[in-house]
Amino acid sequence: MHDRVDGSEAARWLSGLGDALARADVDATLALFHDDCYWRDFVAFTWNVKTVEGKAALADMLRRTLAHTTPSGWQITDAETVSPTETRLWFTFTTAVGKGLGIATLHDGRCRSILTTLQSLDGHEEASGPTRPLGVRHGADRNRTTWAEARAAELSGFETGQDPYCLIIGGGQGGIMLGARLRQLNVPTLIVEKNPRPGDSWRNRYRSLVLHDPVWYDHLPYIPFPEHWPVFTPKDKMGDWLEMYAKVMELVYWGGTECVSARFDESEQRWTVELLRDGRPVTLRPTQLVFATGAYGPPKRLQLAGQEDFRGEVLHSSQYSDGSGYAGKKVVVIGAASSGHDVSVDLWEAGAEVTMIQRSPTTVVRSETLMKFAFDIYSEEAVAQGIDVDTADLMAAATPFALLPPSQKALYDRIREYDADFYRQLEEAGFLLDFGPDETGLMMKAYRTGSGYYIDVGASQLIIDGHIRIKAGVEIDHLTPSGVAFSDGSEIEADVIIQSTGFHSMHEVVAQIVDRRTADRIGPCWGLGSGTRNDPGPWHGELRNMYKPVAQQNLWFHGGNLALSRFFSKFLALQIKARQEGLAGPIYGGP
Amino acid sequence: MHDRVDGSEAARWLSGLGDALARADVDATLALFHDDCYWRDFVAFTWNVKTVEGKAALADMLRRTLAHTTPSGWQITDAETVSPTETRLWFTFTTAVGKGLGIATLHDGRCRSILTTLQSLDGHEEASGPTRPLGVRHGADRNRTTWAEARAAELSGFETGQDPYCLIIGGGQGGIMLGARLRQLNVPTLIVEKNPRPGDSWRNRYRSLVLHDPVWYDHLPYIPFPEHWPVFTPKDKMGDWLEMYAKVMELVYWGGTECVSARFDESEQRWTVELLRDGRPVTLRPTQLVFATGAYGPPKRLQLAGQEDFRGEVLHSSQYSDGSGYAGKKVVVIGAASSGHDVSVDLWEAGAEVTMIQRSPTTVVRSETLMKFAFDIYSEEAVAQGIDVDTADLMAAATPFALLPPSQKALYDRIREYDADFYRQLEEAGFLLDFGPDETGLMMKAYRTGSGYYIDVGASQLIIDGHIRIKAGVEIDHLTPSGVAFSDGSEIEADVIIQSTGFHSMHEVVAQIVDRRTADRIGPCWGLGSGTRNDPGPWHGELRNMYKPVAQQNLWFHGGNLALSRFFSKFLALQIKARQEGLAGPIYGGP
Repeated sequence: MHDRVDGSEAARWLSGLGDALARADVDATLALFHDDCYWRDFVAFTWNVKTVEGKAALADMLRRTLAHTTPSGWQITDAETVSPTETRLWFTFTTAVGKGLGIATLHDGRCRSILTTLQSLDGHEEASGPTRPLGVRHGADRNRTTWAEARAAELSGFETGQDPYCLIIGGGQGGIMLGARLRQLNVPTLIVEKNPRPGDSWRNRYRSLVLHDPVWYDHLPYIPFPEHWPVFTPKDKMGDWLEMYAKVMELVYWGGTECVSARFDESEQRWTVELLRDGRPVTLRPTQLVFATGAYGPPKRLQLAGQEDFRGEVLHSSQYSDGSGYAGKKVVVIGAASSGHDVSVDLWEAGAEVTMIQRSPTTVVRSETLMKFAFDIYSEEAVAQGIDVDTADLMAAATPFALLPPSQKALYDRIREYDADFYRQLEEAGFLLDFGPDETGLMMKAYRTGSGYYIDVGASQLIIDGHIRIKAGVEIDHLTPSGVAFSDGSEIEADVIIQSTGFHSMHEVVAQIVDRRTADRIGPCWGLGSGTRNDPGPWHGELRNMYKPVAQQNLWFHGGNLALSRFFSKFLALQIKARQEGLAGPIYGGP
Repeated sequence: MHDRVDGSEAARWLSGLGDALARADVDATLALFHDDCYWRDFVAFTWNVKTVEGKAALADMLRRTLAHTTPSGWQITDAETVSPTETRLWFTFTTAVGKGLGIATLHDGRCRSILTTLQSLDGHEEASGPTRPLGVRHGADRNRTTWAEARAAELSGFETGQDPYCLIIGGGQGGIMLGARLRQLNVPTLIVEKNPRPGDSWRNRYRSLVLHDPVWYDHLPYIPFPEHWPVFTPKDKMGDWLEMYAKVMELVYWGGTECVSARFDESEQRWTVELLRDGRPVTLRPTQLVFATGAYGPPKRLQLAGQEDFRGEVLHSSQYSDGSGYAGKKVVVIGAASSGHDVSVDLWEAGAEVTMIQRSPTTVVRSETLMKFAFDIYSEEAVAQGIDVDTADLMAAATPFALLPPSQKALYDRIREYDADFYRQLEEAGFLLDFGPDETGLMMKAYRTGSGYYIDVGASQLIIDGHIRIKAGVEIDHLTPSGVAFSDGSEIEADVIIQSTGFHSMHEVVAQIVDRRTADRIGPCWGLGSGTRNDPGPWHGELRNMYKPVAQQNLWFHGGNLALSRFFSKFLALQIKARQEGLAGPIYGGP
C-alpha cells in the first residue's frame, strides 16, 4: 500500500462530482474527468457490468441513467497517494434503490478512472453482524417450527410444488458461491448438479491437481479459509470445503441431477425446466435461470484423419482423471496449455512415456515467480496491511480492462528477465513460448480467451529435462494404426492420445439445453473483444455475457476462477434480487 | 473498553517484574504485589492450571518453578485504565520452552492479580498465516503422495497397526476442539465417539433446543462462525457445524465406537484401550488418554419407593428427545434446573400436561437480560471495538475465581432489580428462586456445581401462566400405581415421570472404563471447592481435575460449554504436545 494522504484534494473532487451529479449537470461532471477517462459500473448506474470509455460515452451513460439512479451522499472513506501525480480515493454513495461503494483514481486532480458498484438494496440488506438473525423465537410455542424442520421442508419443497425463483444449472464453485449470495438475500434458489456431491467437479479431476492460485485469492464469501489453510489447496480438500460450505450455508443443492431442457415462456415470464433427478423427471418453473456449468462449455474435440484406423485409445482431457492405467504406455498429449501440461505430468508420474504436441505457442510462468510478483494484494503481506479479500477485489476491479495491458506487459517484462534462464532452457527443449500478441502475459490471455497458458508447478522442468518430449511447430496430418503422422512426414508411436484441446464457449451449453437460436442470439461468452487471436472485436471492455444481462432475458452466465466467481457473484445476486423485488432499473449498454 | 493509557507506569512495573524474575529474586518480586494477590498460571510456570493466592503461596510457586522456567523478555503490548486506581496491562514473555502471553491488573501501582499463559512451544508452533503449509511440493514426483492419499492412509492407519499418541474418548464439542488443537500441533490423535456422526450429541437432544449462549461466546478455534450466523444456534445446525468442522479440520474421528476399557501400563507408560468400532473389537496403545465424554458423567437416577408399582413410564432426561408421543399425557418432570425446564417446555409444546417437581431452589435469569448485562466482552459491540473471541477469553481468565463473587453478586443485584416483576411473578406461581448461597448467581453455580440454574428462553412464562404447574418445597414420598405421592400427603397423577435429576461427576466414567480405584484416587471433576452446597472444600481456586494433570498420569479430562472447551483446549493440547516432545517441566501444585 501507499502513503495515506489527507484527502482534501480528493475530497474536494468527490464533492464536486456529487454536486454535479445531483444537478444532473453532465458538462460539469465531464469537466472533472480527463479526456481519456473510464467509468466502470457494476449495477449501480447501468444495471449492467459496464465500462464506458471517453467523455462522449460517459456523457451518454450519465444522460440515460442519472434520472432513475439519483446518486447522492458521496462520502470519501479513504484516500492514498499512488504516485506523485496520482491519488486513489475510496467512497460510498447511495442510489435510488441502495448503497454503493467505489474507487476513483485522480491524475493531477482530474479523474482517469472510476469504479462504482452497488453493494446492497435498501430494505433487502443481508442480515449480518449486528443484524444477524436471533436463531430462535424465545418463548414457548405449540406451533413452533424448529430449524431442522424448516430446513427439511425447504430441502423437499422444490420437489413438492414450490418453484425456486432462481435455478442455477451447475453446482461447482460458481454455482455454490452464487447460491450462497442468493440465500443470504432470501432468494429461493435451487442448484442442480450432475455429480452426486458438491465438490465432485474438483474431486473428479486428475490425481495430482492442486489449485494454481494461492489461498488469499481463492476465498469463498462469508466463510474465509482459516489461517492454517495451505497456500495451494489440493483438489480433494477443495472438494470437501465446497461440500461443507454448501451444507453450512444452507443451500438447496440437488446432486445427481441433469438439466435436460429449458424453455422461456414469454407470457408468464418464466422458464419451464425439465430435470432428471437421480433419473426421475422433475419439471420446475423458475423465473431466473443461471448457467454456471463451468467457465468452459462442452469439450472441443479434434476430428483427426485416420482416427478410425488408430488402434489405441483417444480421449479428451476432461475424461482423464488418473494415470495409473498408463504405466509404460506411449501417450501423446495434443495441446500445451494448462490441462495439457497437468495431464502430461500426471501421466509421467504414473510411469507413462509422454509426448506433448504443441500446436501453437504457450505463455508459461513459474508459480513461484507469479506469487512473488503478481499477487501483491492477495498475500499474507496484504492481509497484514489490512487488505482483506473484499478490499483487494475492489482494488483489482478499479482498473478497467482497457488499462490493464501496459501494467501487465511491464509485469511480464520483469518476469521474463527474472526467469530468463528458465525460459531459455524451455525454448532449448523445443517448447514454443509466447507472452501474448502484445506481450501482456498470462492474465490478459485468461481474460481474452481463457486458454493458451500454463502456471508452471513442475511440468516445465520435465520438459527441460526431456522427460516430457515436445513435438512443436508442426501440424498433425493423420493418425496411423499405431500413432501420429505429421505434416513434415515424421511419425511417432502412440498407445493413447489425449486431446487437451480446450472447450467451446459456455453458450454452447445453452444451445444444448435451450436451443441453437437462443444460443446464437446470445453469442459467445468470455473474452473482451481485444481483436487478438480467438478474441475477435469489437471491443467490449468487459467479459462478454458474464455476470450481466444477455440477449435472452432472465438468463445469466456465471463462472470463472474462484476469485471472479466470488467477486461477481455479489453483483449477479443483486441483479437477480432486484428483479425478484421489482427494483431493477433500465439496463444501460445492454446486449 | 476503557481509555488507553500511555502505559509508562505499567511498563515500569513489568520491567521491574522481569528484572526480579531474571535474578530469581523472590523478595523483590513479592514487593511488586499487594498482600492480597493472585497469580493465575496456565502451563507457563506451573505446567498446571493453577492459581496461587497471597504472597506466601506466590513465593513458594516462584521458588519451585523459576529455575526451570527462566522467564524473560517481558514486553508490554497494551495497557488501559480500568478505574482511577486500576490499570490493566497486556504483555508477552518467553520461557525455557516457549512463548507466553499474560494480563496483570495493578492497583495503585502494585499488582493485585496476574495471569500468565503458555501460548506456544518453540520449534512446535502451529503453522498459520505466514507459516501456513504450501499444500503442494511443486515439481513432478513419481513417488508423490497426494493429499487425498495421505488423508486416506491417516484415516485407516490407527486400525492397521499404528497407535495414536493421544486417544480422546468422546467426540462432542470438547473432543472435537481438543482434537483440532492437537492436529494443528501435529500430535497423532484419534477421537472415538459412540454416536455415528460428529454433531450427533447435539442432534440427539430434544427437538426445540437452541444454544443458550450467544454466538460470540460459542466460536470454535480456527474457523469462527460467519457473520450471518444466528445469535442462538439451533441444535441441529450446531450438529452440522461440528460435522463440517471435524471434516475440514482433518480430524481422525471414529463414530459408532465405544470405549470398553482402558488400562495403564506403568512400565511402558502407555494405555491399552479396548474399543468396539461398529461392534468390532479394536485394541490401541495410546500414550495419552483424554476423557471428553461431556461435562457430566453418567445420569443420576432417583430410586423412588414404589417405582415397581408405577404403571407409567419412568425415564431420565438424557433419554428424552421428542415430546410427540406425550400429547395429552400427564407428565411429571422431577427437577427444575436447565434440562427440567427445557424438557417441560418441549412436552408442553407437544401437548402434554406438565407438572415440574422442584426439590430445591433454582437460579433463573432471563436470556435477554443476560445478553444485556453479562456478555459485554462477547458481543457485536465488543467485536466492533476489536475484542475478538481470543482476546475476550484472556480478559475473562484474567480475573481469578476467588475474585469473581463480588462482581457476580453486583451483576445479579442489578439483574434482580431490572427483572423484579418477572421474579415476583415466578415466585407467585410457587417457583422457588435463589441466586446461590452467596447471591452470586448463575455463573458461580455453573463453576461450583454445574447445576441448579436455568437461562430462561420461555419456560418461566409458561410457569407464570400456569401452563407448567409447579410442585415445590415438598419431598416425593413414593410412587403409586398412577402417580406421585408427596411427604405432605398430597398426590398427583402421572402417566410419565421424567427425572431431570442431573448427572454424576465425569470421574464416574473413569470408574466404568478404567477402574473404581483409579476413579477414586482422581476424585470428582468440576467445582472450585467453594464450600457451598455440592461443592465441598477445601478451596481449589480452579476447576477440579479439568484441563490439567490429575492423580493418574497420562489421563486428562476435557469438557465444559463451548467457551471453556475452546479456551482450555489450547492449554490441554500444549500440555500433551509438550509430553510428546519431552518438553514438559515439573508440575507445580499437582494432584
